[in-house]
Amino acid sequence: MGDERTTRMAAEIAEQPDAVAATLDGLRPLRADIADLARGRRSIAFVARGSSDNAAIYGRYLLETHAHRAASLAAPSVATLYHSRVDLTDALVVSVSQSGATEEIVETQAWARACGAAVVAVTNDASSPLARQADIVLVTRAGQERAVPATKTYTTQLAAMTVLATALAEDPQVLDHDLARVPEQMAALIERRDGVDAAVDALAGTHETLVSGRGLVFGTALEVALKLEETCLRPVRGLSYADLRHGPIAVVDADLVTVLVAAADGPVLAGMHDIADDLAARGSTTIGIGGDEVFATRCAVGVAGPDLPESLAPLALVVPGQLVVEALARRLGLDPDAPRGLEKVTQTDV
Amino acid sequence: MGDERTTRMAAEIAEQPDAVAATLDGLRPLRADIADLARGRRSIAFVARGSSDNAAIYGRYLLETHAHRAASLAAPSVATLYHSRVDLTDALVVSVSQSGATEEIVETQAWARACGAAVVAVTNDASSPLARQADIVLVTRAGQERAVPATKTYTTQLAAMTVLATALAEDPQVLDHDLARVPEQMAALIERRDGVDAAVDALAGTHETLVSGRGLVFGTALEVALKLEETCLRPVRGLSYADLRHGPIAVVDADLVTVLVAAADGPVLAGMHDIADDLAARGSTTIGIGGDEVFATRCAVGVAGPDLPESLAPLALVVPGQLVVEALARRLGLDPDAPRGLEKVTQTDV
Repeated sequence: MGDERTTRMAAEIAEQPDAVAATLDGLRPLRADIADLARGRRSIAFVARGSSDNAAIYGRYLLETHAHRAASLAAPSVATLYHSRVDLTDALVVSVSQSGATEEIVETQAWARACGAAVVAVTNDASSPLARQADIVLVTRAGQERAVPATKTYTTQLAAMTVLATALAEDPQVLDHDLARVPEQMAALIERRDGVDAAVDALAGTHETLVSGRGLVFGTALEVALKLEETCLRPVRGLSYADLRHGPIAVVDADLVTVLVAAADGPVLAGMHDIADDLAARGSTTIGIGGDEVFATRCAVGVAGPDLPESLAPLALVVPGQLVVEALARRLGLDPDAPRGLEKVTQTDV
Repeated sequence: MGDERTTRMAAEIAEQPDAVAATLDGLRPLRADIADLARGRRSIAFVARGSSDNAAIYGRYLLETHAHRAASLAAPSVATLYHSRVDLTDALVVSVSQSGATEEIVETQAWARACGAAVVAVTNDASSPLARQADIVLVTRAGQERAVPATKTYTTQLAAMTVLATALAEDPQVLDHDLARVPEQMAALIERRDGVDAAVDALAGTHETLVSGRGLVFGTALEVALKLEETCLRPVRGLSYADLRHGPIAVVDADLVTVLVAAADGPVLAGMHDIADDLAARGSTTIGIGGDEVFATRCAVGVAGPDLPESLAPLALVVPGQLVVEALARRLGLDPDAPRGLEKVTQTDV
């Protein structure tokens, strides 16, 4: 499995700056159509699973903080198992699936439409069932992804979320101003790999890992946790620091390595400083991805993050997490491209 | 710490049938007021954290399947950290907190009202800040809860959720028919403890536990996971079987004990049969709480659940989980009443 550029996962991580730039260019012209479709609809619900669910969580926070609409995650079983008719006449439903072929998501999207929702699909396959049955399709420009762990299909989904938010925001300039810098920030992190090897060293020796973040980067924390778990085959938990304080912090001790994910600014950062201190005081080795200089000094290991505002940081902040996961899998003698027991298109009910 | 009735937690578990009956009696007369307040509001959002969040997850599924309104969980940080104004003029917001004093929840409720929501508070303290600032207060009749792990305050919150659902359902009889049997079903499980000791034996020897359920009993699975973790001080994860299949199942092996929580009927049960088989095939010891006879035979250890339809099963199904947690804590030499590092009222930002 050799050096880091020989795996498909590594190659696909490196393709992300171009894929995100292409996705932003391709989707920006659809903003007016999105705004028209969403007019008068006061709530937004995402339908997704797995990495797409983590992208939807970012979308949820971004829409609530920048487009001021109530946003939430739908429960697919209400559609697929309970077949319950829910009043969605006030809702815009956004389905997210890289393949556009996961039956559960396709079926839930069809249910949402039957319940009165307007439907936007975010998918990497323009000819997929999900795409064919949506009012508007946001096709991500990731190209074919061959490694099982989603990387470029995930970050291009995040790019689609920024297009949704700018389409529905009163002032899209707030995000637009920094969106153009995202691809170069991703590229710089891929090039430099600052702190990645030290993080791999810290993680290679533990069986127990916990990943925490909050707010706009909470989805990033969950995505790093999912990637670490499915690719490196160890149990990993992702929790907001709020939920961590509400019980699970009781079990933190020196056996646990914690990965803390933070943007360089924003109202969550002070809480991330505090939780880094608290976890260290309980004996945990802390790996900080991103954050500001204070955050890096409070964590035992610092991994560089992007120079982007919190609202857009998730697009690049996941990249060092992906680099850590890919390198850790190789360190552990695992194949990051084809983790044991997983397939590229997951069906929920078998 | 002697036999099982000497801890506060055990005593409070045993008080639940009366507490739930008193809560149902106390809240039933408020149904018409709830229906009036919710009239014309198409979505419902819950504001909660910790065990109350798990009660809200039940409320979410119950309202979507029985009252046919879109229901979701609010993200408190949107209010408390981002101070973002969100359009909630179409929403009924339900705040859930046993103390009614957790600042994050009180602040998020005030924000929801300022954003245009109608507000219902579910709390065990009628004079709490949460109660004082709501349009309607559903006071749970749990009495004072002195053990740190929530038991009777949690199940009385679930009772409040059934009152909400019957208030908003087109046909409240569907739930009412079986609601009256809930307290006696809880009492029978507390009296018999079928399978509890065997489950404690299986859990005492492992460091890694995963709890799974789905749909209407998903919140029960999360609550059993939270209780196990905070009381028995081991890392425990709670996942729906859908999310489990979407990645984390890759790490299941013989080191992991899985606790599967299921109702005796309903559309989720077939999937629970399948996941029990799959987990066993991966070498995991499976403990099944509830389910039907087939489910019990497919799990290595069967713990008896209630004879209630899936929609109401959560009120009693958590009881054997609580009994297992209380007995396991004692087996491990821990004090279930005062777990290390936790306080009764949790503040998120310190």
